[in-house]
Amino acid sequence: MVIRVWAPHAGRVELAIASERIAMTLGDRGWWLADPPAAVAGADYAFLLDGAEPPIPDPRSNWQPAGVHGPSRLVDHASFRWSDAGWNAPALEAAVIYELHVGTFTPAGTFDAAIERLRHLVDLGVTHVELMPVAEFPGNRGWGYDGVDLFAPHHSYGGPDGLKRLADACHAHRLAILIDVVYNHLGPDGNYLPRFGPYLTDRYSTPWGDAINFDDRGSDEVRRFFCDNAQMWLRDYHADGLRIDAVHAISDNSARHLLEQLAEETAALEQRLGRRLVLIAESDANDPRIVRPPELGGYGIGAQWSDDLHHALHSVLTGERTGYYADFGTVADLAKAITRAFVYDGRHSAFRGRRHGRWPAGISGNRFLGYLQTHDQVGNRAQGERTARLMSLGRLKIGAAIVITAPFIPMIFAGEEWAASTPFLYFTGHDNPDLARAVSEGRKRSFAAAGGAIGEVPDPQAPATFARSKLLWSEVASPPHNEILAWYRELLSLRAATPELRDGRLDLVKVQFDEAARWLTITRGAITLACNLADRTQPVALGDRAPRRIVMASDPRITLSGATVDLPPDTVAIVRTS
Amino acid sequence: MVIRVWAPHAGRVELAIASERIAMTLGDRGWWLADPPAAVAGADYAFLLDGAEPPIPDPRSNWQPAGVHGPSRLVDHASFRWSDAGWNAPALEAAVIYELHVGTFTPAGTFDAAIERLRHLVDLGVTHVELMPVAEFPGNRGWGYDGVDLFAPHHSYGGPDGLKRLADACHAHRLAILIDVVYNHLGPDGNYLPRFGPYLTDRYSTPWGDAINFDDRGSDEVRRFFCDNAQMWLRDYHADGLRIDAVHAISDNSARHLLEQLAEETAALEQRLGRRLVLIAESDANDPRIVRPPELGGYGIGAQWSDDLHHALHSVLTGERTGYYADFGTVADLAKAITRAFVYDGRHSAFRGRRHGRWPAGISGNRFLGYLQTHDQVGNRAQGERTARLMSLGRLKIGAAIVITAPFIPMIFAGEEWAASTPFLYFTGHDNPDLARAVSEGRKRSFAAAGGAIGEVPDPQAPATFARSKLLWSEVASPPHNEILAWYRELLSLRAATPELRDGRLDLVKVQFDEAARWLTITRGAITLACNLADRTQPVALGDRAPRRIVMASDPRITLSGATVDLPPDTVAIVRTS
Repeated sequence: MVIRVWAPHAGRVELAIASERIAMTLGDRGWWLADPPAAVAGADYAFLLDGAEPPIPDPRSNWQPAGVHGPSRLVDHASFRWSDAGWNAPALEAAVIYELHVGTFTPAGTFDAAIERLRHLVDLGVTHVELMPVAEFPGNRGWGYDGVDLFAPHHSYGGPDGLKRLADACHAHRLAILIDVVYNHLGPDGNYLPRFGPYLTDRYSTPWGDAINFDDRGSDEVRRFFCDNAQMWLRDYHADGLRIDAVHAISDNSARHLLEQLAEETAALEQRLGRRLVLIAESDANDPRIVRPPELGGYGIGAQWSDDLHHALHSVLTGERTGYYADFGTVADLAKAITRAFVYDGRHSAFRGRRHGRWPAGISGNRFLGYLQTHDQVGNRAQGERTARLMSLGRLKIGAAIVITAPFIPMIFAGEEWAASTPFLYFTGHDNPDLARAVSEGRKRSFAAAGGAIGEVPDPQAPATFARSKLLWSEVASPPHNEILAWYRELLSLRAATPELRDGRLDLVKVQFDEAARWLTITRGAITLACNLADRTQPVALGDRAPRRIVMASDPRITLSGATVDLPPDTVAIVRTS
Repeated sequence: MVIRVWAPHAGRVELAIASERIAMTLGDRGWWLADPPAAVAGADYAFLLDGAEPPIPDPRSNWQPAGVHGPSRLVDHASFRWSDAGWNAPALEAAVIYELHVGTFTPAGTFDAAIERLRHLVDLGVTHVELMPVAEFPGNRGWGYDGVDLFAPHHSYGGPDGLKRLADACHAHRLAILIDVVYNHLGPDGNYLPRFGPYLTDRYSTPWGDAINFDDRGSDEVRRFFCDNAQMWLRDYHADGLRIDAVHAISDNSARHLLEQLAEETAALEQRLGRRLVLIAESDANDPRIVRPPELGGYGIGAQWSDDLHHALHSVLTGERTGYYADFGTVADLAKAITRAFVYDGRHSAFRGRRHGRWPAGISGNRFLGYLQTHDQVGNRAQGERTARLMSLGRLKIGAAIVITAPFIPMIFAGEEWAASTPFLYFTGHDNPDLARAVSEGRKRSFAAAGGAIGEVPDPQAPATFARSKLLWSEVASPPHNEILAWYRELLSLRAATPELRDGRLDLVKVQFDEAARWLTITRGAITLACNLADRTQPVALGDRAPRRIVMASDPRITLSGATVDLPPDTVAIVRTS
């Protein structure tokens, strides 16, 4: 195998492999090459730049079996035996996404263990499994957003072959697989990239450290690094798409934004591979440019996460008004989120201290993901409480019903579907003692203002914090978890069977509400969802179309009487006219 | 008059006026108000924030008669007697822009003195006068790009009334007036804005200091500051447009870029005022988004400077290959600049160390300014040599002919039209001794690498450096200046009389060249420009259309013979078929 590495500023580069030091040859544009006999699949190797000891891992390492500081291991992607010939992912319009963290999804926390639970996802009605970042990050446990070896599936999850087995099994279950990638910063430990080349820039800053150099001197190869990374997951791991983390923190003022380049190259790869690929951005910018097509000046990303629906829904259901929830809280905002995707479409945000966002005029709801919770909103709470801990079962059902019948692509965070009792805490496994201490103390400090009100903040570094975050599959079959799971299954089944619920045209969605009386109806074709958030039973008008029948009810006391439905407190009904 | 100031973080604000200290009242959104009897036009005032002495000038001061550290003076814009009723600027398609620096344009260096030279511009064929920045900058002389009181015409130029007299006189001469504004940074001395509010951000950096806060907390009012500034020049000074400096250094990752907001508000003001307004961006990004219309995802700016034509032309005509000219130098690049505007349209730039730019597909040439020189390329040379110092008169005529017949809006830098012998040096007049020393030494250092080859670097702070940069109007009538002036007049007259020369459709421009033989022809409708850059006479083919006649020739030895024109070295002919 030819081993290559980009080190444009190095005077000499040596390859350390099989106890040897081999001088590499400088090829074009700062790429160094070597092709020793020892370079076979499974061999460990590392590089020395200008003789600096110890040898350091390959920025494009495909496998870091001993972690971020260990040697890289050569992988032969061609050797894996795939069984998914002819596979093609469903279109985004029909998608139901399931976000999961490999380490906490099962007791073993591996790719292989996750395979055992794919049947559950199929039965639930999921179409796309989305893995939180799997690229090698420091330590044996973590969320994965501090990855440094972006081409290497994490050793603790099972490495390259493990991920391939999971992808292959997903496809065998007719599930698409999406991988979360972080292209806005690199982790704080094990990041050897700046030793190799101008991967970072001080022109911009991110909340998590130096920004990636996408538009300054040397950025062509840096962009290739990330674009090649995207292609690798899609091509070599048969992923059906990527979720791109925090794209608002990707600063690129060049004439072709990195996201547009990624979208173009993904479209070209889709043609070559002959199967559907999708890019989904996490964006906090409320900027329609992300998902607008390139011919209209957009970046052409397939879809984006939309926190505004989450925040509007969460604040209405929980009454929470702290942090970013200060910007939400009214039923009117929830109604706006459902009909316009962005509540903040140029409106002044008190939380941000400025106007925020822009109306995504003419853009389909199918370009936005809607969700009641994600790893972020759960895990960034001091106690990592899932939504189920923060509201009644009745409200949980309302939240699920709104998300799953909304004109957006629904996404479920693993465990949400049975109101998992376990938290999803912020956990890390840093080996570097200074960093470990900084993370532990930083976490405590970030919640210090709230004082005792939120209880003791779990130490991210404590193994128990990770262990507590693992899903308890034993609870799924028992009340109330089984009741919630049945509710989710029924909702997803209704969505799958009802074309108007998958219709992304936002201008066809009719929402009515009474802020004071706290009821809300959402009508989409023949389907009307009616919910009562008041603390008293009330009749809610369903509109003129008749006859009507209740197709789902969150409570047996719900009754239909003529053009109204009588809803007890914290209940929701889905009514069909026919 | 009500005096207002935005100081959102101040606990109290006092107004110092007429030897009094008046407590201001906090109104909405951090704005403080006072309306004392002493606040009449002509009164001087300043502010104290939380009691801090000495009082500091108003960020929105309309007049700083004693410079950046002195008091602000109240201006009543309604009191000026305008005589330009019914004025409307010509459309950009018909424009010929003349860039001038008020301080060096005339011996007196004032707005009023400039009025005396407007007749010259009319006779030349100019339609738009563009003033280099006039907003109050530190000291009594300077280029103006380090302004700090952005609402105050510079005291040394003649203050608010002087600028109004100049604008009024321009209109009386049927000349439009454009003002150069700097919205990407603030100057290093006299910048009191950060004391008042979050005008700056450390999220981004610029080559000239802190970036302006256009997208972070508090940015709504900061954006208003700049948008209101734009409106002020257009409304209160009757400017017909703005040239916006270095827009690539305006970092704004919000969903509506500041440039788009400026373009929208300018369009609305145009409606209100009932006369044509234009925004022109200086952009180094080669990004078509700047001038693309908003409905196609662009910012909707009217036109942008395009350095690629300049660099391609300059490097071919002078043979210079240092600095940014390293990226240019072939006749092929010049041909590309003429037909595609951007030579760097995604191509790798050695100077930048990365791919640069994007093809402005479908965008009219009338959205780009073409020029043989600007204050920048002249003044950023150690000796401030104008183009005329760097090439033969023959080549100077070739350069002018290419620019003025090109499918772009031609721009002339004051004095260019007569091959002015005076340099345009980098000059400053900083009063702050530390800053003065830093500027002098910095300038020397920036050319240190070139060593003695470029001679002694003039000290920017020396009064003589400024004095030497003033145009010598006495030379205009004498050879060779009068010959060059006549050439420019003839070219501009030809352009004005020839519709196909003002046609911005780049796909209609035909360019042929021979890199080795160093000839080039540019055909636009019935007009063909043919030039010979070789050191020997050669025949250049004109294409099939006949009959032909020479309409302009840079040399009397040029002869037409059938389908070719015989061109001596360094000559150009403009031939018409009819």
